[in-house]
Amino acid sequence: MQIARIIGTTVATMKDPRLQGAKLLLCQPTDITGRQNLGQPFAAVDVVDAGEGDLILVCHGSAARQTASTKDAPVDSVVMAVLDSLELDGQTVFRKE
Amino acid sequence: MQIARIIGTTVATMKDPRLQGAKLLLCQPTDITGRQNLGQPFAAVDVVDAGEGDLILVCHGSAARQTASTKDAPVDSVVMAVLDSLELDGQTVFRKE
Amino acid sequence: MQIARIIGTTVATMKDPRLQGAKLLLCQPTDITGRQNLGQPFAAVDVVDAGEGDLILVCHGSAARQTASTKDAPVDSVVMAVLDSLELDGQTVFRKE
Amino acid sequence: MQIARIIGTTVATMKDPRLQGAKLLLCQPTDITGRQNLGQPFAAVDVVDAGEGDLILVCHGSAARQTASTKDAPVDSVVMAVLDSLELDGQTVFRKE
Amino acid sequence: MQIARIIGTTVATMKDPRLQGAKLLLCQPTDITGRQNLGQPFAAVDVVDAGEGDLILVCHGSAARQTASTKDAPVDSVVMAVLDSLELDGQTVFRKE
Repeated sequence: MQIARIIGTTVATMKDPRLQGAKLLLCQPTDITGRQNLGQPFAAVDVVDAGEGDLILVCHGSAARQTASTKDAPVDSVVMAVLDSLELDGQTVFRKE
Repeated sequence: MQIARIIGTTVATMKDPRLQGAKLLLCQPTDITGRQNLGQPFAAVDVVDAGEGDLILVCHGSAARQTASTKDAPVDSVVMAVLDSLELDGQTVFRKE
Repeated sequence: MQIARIIGTTVATMKDPRLQGAKLLLCQPTDITGRQNLGQPFAAVDVVDAGEGDLILVCHGSAARQTASTKDAPVDSVVMAVLDSLELDGQTVFRKE
Repeated sequence: MQIARIIGTTVATMKDPRLQGAKLLLCQPTDITGRQNLGQPFAAVDVVDAGEGDLILVCHGSAARQTASTKDAPVDSVVMAVLDSLELDGQTVFRKE
Repeated sequence: MQIARIIGTTVATMKDPRLQGAKLLLCQPTDITGRQNLGQPFAAVDVVDAGEGDLILVCHGSAARQTASTKDAPVDSVVMAVLDSLELDGQTVFRKE
């Protein structure tokens, strides 16, 4: 699973019917401290009520359809966890404020 | 899901029979403002009647077969939403004209 | 789907039994004009009788098993269309000779 | 499968219900000696009781759901083996201490 | 499918039970002549009795589970063919010795 930060939202009226009601967020991949951006933002469906600024875990591929709200939908990225903290070699490198 | 712009069309007479009738568009990945191109164009099946110049969302992998018209077809990329707007930190960074 | 050119062939006597009879071609990814090579060649199963020099579309991942001849086979790339032409902003950037 | 080292742990209270009880570890991809880091860390579910510092194998994609504890869960990376040793051209390039 | 060379072996006592008996080899991606290394080595299950030094084809993703011995196992890469020769524009660029 990839570490990323919620940075924005998307609006799309014309979309596949199986995406009606899905919350599509913009996610920015980051390093494990959440401070440095890595690569390009992408869109993911949120299933854990994540908020802007949250550091989250995203899963990609067919795994993104293994939630109650994304089952059988054309979705390849889902926000499936909001991170509280990350520990590296026994040290806390990220803690949610 | 990846942000991209529709930049062209493809014609292919010899193709797998399950692709008959599929609209195969050329997509150029862009940044979240839609202004800067990122990486190489690719082809994707359109299921939302996207038009040339539209900023769209593409899903890749098995998710691309989760639409009524791509089910069971050899398709790994599908245009599943036309973007109306993108908001970043509360600011509109893209709006469809 | 990725744009590539057929550049060669492979011979492999020792292979998984489900690949018996499969035509395994060498494919070189190219840009949308078919003139500039991008990245490294790979092998793909041909299901549309593509010939050496043809510009083609390749799909990767589980989509590669969605054809009559690759079903249930250990195959992750399939040539599923031979391109006749590509149009970009209304201009033909590639036409098959 | 990718070679990586377990470098840390994650805590996430808000997560998809199918992830309850899953141990989500931070993994750093390395070269085959385990000494040089390659690319960015990611999170993976541990199913083999790996410990911090272990060199492990990770599988990505739908394969990550082929274990008793990750079946049907939104998981795209799983630690499925702890490496004891790696041999290259007949020489041991890594041995677990 | 990716072209790679078998360069070594792995030993892992602690692993998912579905991997018992699987031969996990180290593979180095190469160019189409087999002479130049490209990118990082990875581990793959061998199902065609490949030997060290062989140039082989690897398939990734769910395709890696489409063999008799990898079915339903947490495996994302499988060696499914040993290359005898590769021809490029009518010239043999690789031949097994």
